[in-house]
Order: sequence, then C-alpha cells, then structure tokens
Amino acid sequence: MIRHTVVFTLKHASGSAEERAFLDAALVLDAIPGVQKFERLRQVSPKADYTFGFSMEFADQAAYQAYNDHPDHVAFVRDRWLPEVAKFQEIDYVAL
Amino acid sequence: MIRHTVVFTLKHASGSAEERAFLDAALVLDAIPGVQKFERLRQVSPKADYTFGFSMEFADQAAYQAYNDHPDHVAFVRDRWLPEVAKFQEIDYVAL
Repeated sequence: MIRHTVVFTLKHASGSAEERAFLDAALVLDAIPGVQKFERLRQVSPKADYTFGFSMEFADQAAYQAYNDHPDHVAFVRDRWLPEVAKFQEIDYVAL
Repeated sequence: MIRHTVVFTLKHASGSAEERAFLDAALVLDAIPGVQKFERLRQVSPKADYTFGFSMEFADQAAYQAYNDHPDHVAFVRDRWLPEVAKFQEIDYVAL
C-alpha cells in the first residue's frame, strides 16, 4: 500500500464559489483506475499553514504511476492544480 | 473524526538501533485512551524532506485533547520527541 497525500492552500477566498468548484473538480481523480480511499480533507492544525488536503491509496507503485500518467490526472494538474493552488506539500507513506 | 498526523526526520542514522528504539517507544502512544488507527509510517515521496510519519484518529476534539494531556504522551514528547526529532510538520485533518 502506498498512501499519496497532498496538503495545500488555494488562491481562492475561503468559502468562495471558486474554492467549491476546485474541490468538486477534484472528484475526477477518484474515478481514475487504481485510486482507493480517496478523501477530500480540511487541514485544521494551527501549526500547519495549509487549508485542505487530498489523500488516496494505491495497491503498489505501478498503480500509482498509472494514476500519475492518466489523462484525467494530467488534465487536472494542468487546468486546475497549477493555476489555482497557492502552495502545497506532497507527503507519501508506506507502512513501516 | 480528527486525523492527527506528524511527518518527521530523526537525528539518528538511518537503520540505526537508536532509530528502531525511538519507533518502538512510540507504540506507547497507541495505548493511550481515545487513539484509533495508530500507524507508524515511512515517508517515501522524493518531494518531501521527511523520513517517517505517525498517524492516528480521534472521535472528537475532547478525545484529542485528552491524548495531548495524557501523562504517557507528555512523557514521550519530553523524553523522546524533543531530544531525538530533527524536524517535523504536524498536519491534522477533518472530513471536508
């Protein structure tokens, strides 16, 4: 199991229609083959300067790579992520 | 549900006995009342400069606070975390 997470802050105002549209658009990622346990999350620690998070799991590295290469992921990164995300940190986990 | 995570790097050498001892000592956290889904994880993204992670869930803020205040957590932070962790980032999530 590989857990792929990204914690991020949007350029949009909190509670805005643009923020909601971005978070809704991200649901396309959940439909990509191999994606398991897809979650859209709110980051709530005052010790972290990020607002949202996505988390998903893959059975193995091949499934993760297929997700990265999938046209729906490539389009989401190009059309939504890069123009609308102000800052982010990727964190990926495997069991110890 | 609140998911409390922390991604971190130890001062110890990779694969050292000291590293193993720290990770084993952290199991005391799993026994604290209210802690659910405790995980010890290896951080594997080359885009993140951290080596390990812990993840756990709490039913609500009261359970999270009780964990923070629990003597076994206080002792772990004082005796292991502060002296042995080189850098860390806390990230906490709730469902969107």
